[in-house]
Parts: sequence; C-alpha cells; structure tokens
Amino acid sequence: MPQNTRKSDLSNPAMNIPEINLKRVVIIGGGFAGLNIAKNLSGKDFQIVMLDKHNYHTFQPLLYQVATAGLEPDSIAHAIRQIFTKKENFYFRIADVKEIDPENKTIITPIGNIFYDYLIIATGSETNYYGNENIRKYSMPMKTIPEALDLRSLVLQSLEAALLTNDLDERQRLMNFVIVGGGPTGVELAGAFGELKKHVLPNDYPDLDIRRMNVHLIQGADRLLPPMSQNASDKAAKYLDKLGVQVWFNTLVNDYDGKIVTTNDRSFETSTMIWTAGVKGALIPGMEGEDVIVGGRYLVDEFNKIKGLEDIYAVGDVALMMTPYNPKGDPMVAQVAIQQGKQLAKNLMAIKEGKSPKPFKYKDKGSMATIGRDKAVVDLPHWKFSGWFAWLVWMFIHLVSLIGFRNKMIALTNWVVQYFSYNKSVRLIIRPYTKGEAAPRE
Amino acid sequence: MPQNTRKSDLSNPAMNIPEINLKRVVIIGGGFAGLNIAKNLSGKDFQIVMLDKHNYHTFQPLLYQVATAGLEPDSIAHAIRQIFTKKENFYFRIADVKEIDPENKTIITPIGNIFYDYLIIATGSETNYYGNENIRKYSMPMKTIPEALDLRSLVLQSLEAALLTNDLDERQRLMNFVIVGGGPTGVELAGAFGELKKHVLPNDYPDLDIRRMNVHLIQGADRLLPPMSQNASDKAAKYLDKLGVQVWFNTLVNDYDGKIVTTNDRSFETSTMIWTAGVKGALIPGMEGEDVIVGGRYLVDEFNKIKGLEDIYAVGDVALMMTPYNPKGDPMVAQVAIQQGKQLAKNLMAIKEGKSPKPFKYKDKGSMATIGRDKAVVDLPHWKFSGWFAWLVWMFIHLVSLIGFRNKMIALTNWVVQYFSYNKSVRLIIRPYTKGEAAPRE
Repeated sequence: MPQNTRKSDLSNPAMNIPEINLKRVVIIGGGFAGLNIAKNLSGKDFQIVMLDKHNYHTFQPLLYQVATAGLEPDSIAHAIRQIFTKKENFYFRIADVKEIDPENKTIITPIGNIFYDYLIIATGSETNYYGNENIRKYSMPMKTIPEALDLRSLVLQSLEAALLTNDLDERQRLMNFVIVGGGPTGVELAGAFGELKKHVLPNDYPDLDIRRMNVHLIQGADRLLPPMSQNASDKAAKYLDKLGVQVWFNTLVNDYDGKIVTTNDRSFETSTMIWTAGVKGALIPGMEGEDVIVGGRYLVDEFNKIKGLEDIYAVGDVALMMTPYNPKGDPMVAQVAIQQGKQLAKNLMAIKEGKSPKPFKYKDKGSMATIGRDKAVVDLPHWKFSGWFAWLVWMFIHLVSLIGFRNKMIALTNWVVQYFSYNKSVRLIIRPYTKGEAAPRE
Repeated sequence: MPQNTRKSDLSNPAMNIPEINLKRVVIIGGGFAGLNIAKNLSGKDFQIVMLDKHNYHTFQPLLYQVATAGLEPDSIAHAIRQIFTKKENFYFRIADVKEIDPENKTIITPIGNIFYDYLIIATGSETNYYGNENIRKYSMPMKTIPEALDLRSLVLQSLEAALLTNDLDERQRLMNFVIVGGGPTGVELAGAFGELKKHVLPNDYPDLDIRRMNVHLIQGADRLLPPMSQNASDKAAKYLDKLGVQVWFNTLVNDYDGKIVTTNDRSFETSTMIWTAGVKGALIPGMEGEDVIVGGRYLVDEFNKIKGLEDIYAVGDVALMMTPYNPKGDPMVAQVAIQQGKQLAKNLMAIKEGKSPKPFKYKDKGSMATIGRDKAVVDLPHWKFSGWFAWLVWMFIHLVSLIGFRNKMIALTNWVVQYFSYNKSVRLIIRPYTKGEAAPRE
C-alpha cells in the first residue's frame, strides 16, 4: 500500500469515512451484484463503502411494469441504507464515480476521492445505441426508474395529444408505439402495451379509436427471446399476436428521426420508439486498454479480477468472464450478478484468511418471461413450459425476489387487483416528459 | 346563447369535443369539488367537460405522508379518466386554463378555446407567500404531488450532504428543518418529521448524529390548529413535544434567504424551510373586480354563483361564500368542497328542470389531525377526543376517503407495515431536487 497515497486521501476527507484498521472494500453500484457482495461481506472484518448514483436499489426485471402503469416505482425500488440498516462498518454514499486511478488505488468522485484496498466495479449495464446519435436522441431507453417514469408519462401524453390533433397522420404517429429488441425487456414491454390496448385504454379514451393504436415489436433475429428454447420463442410470439402486437422478425433498425423508424425492410411512423435492443457495460474512465475492455465490458478472470490490474474486480453485467465452458461469457442477467457477487465475497474472505479463492462457475437456474395475464414462458434446465402455470411461477419468483416485505406486499396487492379488474391503475403523468429536452434523464 | 361565439368555437375545434344537443358544463379542476360535481351530474343529460393541469386527482390530506416517505405518490393519486370510466358525455382534457372570457362564454387554454353553457371554477387553492419573493424563491411549498416529491428528495439530499460536509455550521443548517404554519398540514408534517427523527433516521445514518437534527414548527397564533378545540390544540402540542418537535408560538416569519429564517422573535438557521402558512384561491385571469374577488377568492352567492356574472360558479377553496350564519365564509377544507360540489350538481339539475335551486349550508362533520403513531386529535360536533382511538378513527376515515380499491389497499398495506416496523419505507430520491432552479416545480 503506497503510504503517500493514503496520506493524500486523508487530506481530502470529503466523504467523511473513517480510516480504521480493516481492509476497505469499495463497491461501485448497488445493483444485484453489489448488494450480494456487501451482504455477504458485512460483519466479516472489512470496511465496506458502497457508492451509487441513486440512493436506492432498482429491481430491474420489473421496470417494464412501471413504464406501463402496472406498478408504482416505489415497489421496485428499495433504499440502500434501509437494506444495510444496523450493519457495522458499512458506509453508503451517493456518488457518480468519475475516474479510477489504479496506480494510486484511488477513485475520483465529485464528493471527494477515496482510497481502496479492494475495488469492486458493479456498475451494471447501460443502453447501447451502437453510436447512432439520432436513436440516442429521439428514442426512449428503459434502464432506470426515471427512464421508466418518463416512458409512462410519454405514452399517456401521446394519447392525450392524439385526442387533440386533427392531423390524421400526426394522430396515427402518436398512436403507434414501436419497441425495438425482442429480448425479455422488449417482449415483456410489448405484452404490457398489448394489455393496455386491449383492456385499459378503450375505457380511458372513449373518444379515441383505440383500435387504431399499433404496437410494433422489431426483432433483428428470426425469433424472440433468442437465448431461450424454440418453444418459448414460439409461444411468446403467439401470445403477443393474441394481444394484438405486431412482431417483425429479421428487421434491423437503421435510423429514427423522431417521426419515422427506418429499417432494412420497411419503415414505421411513430412518435414513440422504445430502444431495448442493446446494452453495454457501464464503464468508468481510467482503465482503458484492449486487454482490460473487451466488447464494452471489463475482461475478468475466473475470480472476477480484472486482468492485468491489482485488487480491482468487476462483477455482473459490466464483467466479461471468458471460460472454457462458456467462451463468449455468461449472459448479462440478474442471476449471474447475484452468483458472482456471492462468490466474490467468499473469495475476498478466503484471500484475507490466506486461503485460495475458488473460480466462479455460473449455475443456470433457468430463464423466464411474461407476456401478459396467464401468459408466460419458463425454461428450466430440465423442464420447459408455458401458459397459466408458467405465469404463476413467474409471479412467485419475482415476488419473493423483491427486496423487503413492504415491496412484496405492495406488488402482490397491485397484481391481485389487476388480475380481477383487468386494470393497470398507475396511469399518472406525475412529471410530464418533454421530448428532446437537453436535461439529463436521471 | 350568442350564436356567433358558438361558431367561433366550432372554427377552433382543438379540443375535439363534439357539439351535441345537451348543455355543456365545463369544470375547471379535478379536486374534491370538481369530482363531486361531475360524478353527480354524469348521466343527467349534460355534456361534462373536465379540465385539469394534471391527469389525476390528488388526495391532498395525505400529501404530507408522501413528503415524509410514508406513502408512495401513486396511492394518493387517482387517474381522472379511470374515475369516469364508461361515463357517457364526459370529456377530460389536460389543460392549464389561461383566461375566462365571460362575455363570450368561452375559456381560453393552450389546447384551444371552448364554449360553455355553465362554467364551474373548482381550481382549489395555491400557496400564498403574501408577496414575499424571497420566501417564494427559497422555501418549499407542499400543495401538489411533484412538490411533495421535491420535498422528500430535498430532506434526504440534505442528510446525505450533512454526512459529507466538515463545516459544522453548514451541517447544522442541513439538519435543521423549519416548518412554518401550525394548521393541519404543518402539524401533521412536523409530526411525521419527528417520527423520522425518532424511529427511522438513526438507523439510516449511523455515521451522523441524528440527535442534532432539529424540527421547528413556527406558528403565528398562540396555539396550534386554531379552528379546532383548545383541547385538540393542547394535545397536538404535547404530542409534538414527545416527538422532539420544537414549537414556537406567536412567531411570525419575516424573511428567509435560503439559510436564515428571520422572525419577530428569533432567527433559525436552516437550508430547508417548508411553507404551509398561507393559501389563496387559485384564480384565473379574466374576471377581475372588487365585487368578484374578495380576499383572493371568488365571491359567490349561496348557490355558488359568482356574484355579478351569469352561469359562472365557483366551488370549494376558490369560492368565498359569506352567509349570515358564517360571515367570514366556510373554511378551505375538503368537506366544504365535497358538499358544495354535490349541492351545485343538484342545483344545476333543478335549474334545467325549471325548479328552484337550494341555498348551500355547510354541515360541519368535524375535523381531525394526526401527529404520529397512536397520536391524533378529533373534534366531532358533540365529542372531542384524542390519542390512540382518535388515531384509529383518523386512519379509517382517510382510508375510506381514498378513491379506488387499489389505493385503499396500498395505503392500508403501507400503514400496517409501518405500524409494526416503525419504518417509513419510501426513502427514495427518484428525481433529485435542485435548489433555486428556474424550472417550474410541477
């Protein structure tokens, strides 16, 4: 440990985190990976410092329900401080980390710089527009709660605007919703839009012909949910068709100017394009190089250590672990993040005790997606099924995975009421969304 | 009906509301008064047009719980379209009415102008800063859901900032919260702050000395909740004292510069001053005059008709009805709005049928305020009580008054969980609040 750095850190005590006689683990990100590391390390003779841009953990798998008025944001968010209530040697700070200085084992943030003994980058993923500036500017991402709320506002504002215009082209554009990306987020979002169209909006807008509302799902591949089984893909497409969603396969979006989506095949007029077609690692400046970053993620060894760097680990979506059994890396899903987080916590304890860390191996517990009421697909390692029971399983798994008793109860209450009422009640424009505004969306 | 105006309205069909052979009632505002008029008029051979700045009704009596992390905003808001699902001849539009043109029986809005046969102004009240520009600029109002969310964010941001600063004066300012106004909003808010300080924040901020947090309630009069009984005032003060809130009587705020509140008596250093000390009618330009506006409200006769104008009514907070039995007018509370709304709906039906309208008379059902867990005061006409049972009554009344089964269930779930956990779980900074920002707060 370079003593001079430690001193310079002391002279910049902006974060007000005490120097104690324990190794300091700094975790950047309170997502699934970060939480699981901190939970499993707390009370184990480490000083844990968690930094996140927000003061809450987001249960990302249900973001699409926030965007489609099914759940309030507060039931899928959980205050990080509350999760770590009464944990000793745990420090949380809201900070947007600007840079990592590996040579001085220091991270640089607007609220001050901090020295680490171990650094864990668990920043997750962010929307990838593949360099298309128009798409970034005009489309709606859905990776955070503010983004999901913006989308909810925009959908409702579009229908209100459709009521008011007498320009028939404009009205149709406002009533067309284009979702790009046939992965779980795109499919679940499209299903929820289909349900809104079928059950909710005709009652809300008697003076608007909701039959003219179109929900398009654009998929580059020749099937939906490509990592899942062919059966799941087929069933998902069938369910979406039943809900009136138009799915376009083998279709690649070229551009979007805020009014027209152009693809390799045809074009779509819409004022709302939702982009779920790409993610990339949420990288932090300061550790560049072809050895460190591969495919937009930090290249890690089987212990989640970033190759070529000391005491810096990456976990979850932001990490790329190429192994003989999975040379392309594990999928960017919650289960990988959770399992890597738990394993890394164990490994750090082993290292502290002079034992050998264990290599990570992903245990695929299966995957699932819900398309709507009574409509879900589940692929377990030895059992693939769909329909009503799959939907129940999906609900149960997501309910028990939500953090906190209150959030579970609130989500359950919403789902039970929705089941019997065919309604999605959170159709509120709390903060109107202004298109193309320069302000950041967070 | 001046036919030429009707024509000019037709030539500006921006609102796309059809002209039919029914009298058109335009209601501005979807608060308690507006909702009750529309509910009681719908299906009664009127065309009803409701306009509101938001697409939801706000249950204002529980706003303070949103501001203090007790309830999610979505459980006290209800989409107006959902309330009037399947009602015939009901039209809702989001519109901020800019002007009323009584001569042409037309209202002017950014989404177009519209002719009315009967106009009902149910715009409620807004924060009154009594012309003090500093207070308007630096203090936090709490009359809308976005404002309550801003306050929630600011309180949490202040504590996060207090953690980071080493300037002890600055830290103390960040940990002092000053609430101005000893009416129900101020008292309930102060109580909720007291509970946060006592039960929630010490666990959240182990590295901050929460004992140094101060909650000040500044009241101009010599007792709290002045319209209620002396017993209620005394009990409220006692309860607040138990929760560690410092109440300052006979204290009038002179100014606030964002750091120091100056009063007639002493000064308070704080970076968060919440202003609940004044409301005024939310007036709309176009109907000025000393006969029309008295004390910042529309002067109405006992039928809620604005004096001197034809076919224009004002109801609820925005209306001032001076009667022999109550020469100062009824209080600006939900019950008056609800009762006036119902009565006006009946009167419009009577007028349509050629019958005589009935004069309004407020039936005071009592008033209540809650200070915290097991701590409330209730004044009924023949029974005044406080404590645990009052608190149960308060909860029951507010629960059944919330609109919609889902909202009732969500609020109940939250309250039950809070009762057993002593927690307030919605401690989320979804949209950070930026002080002194030029953007409007809505």
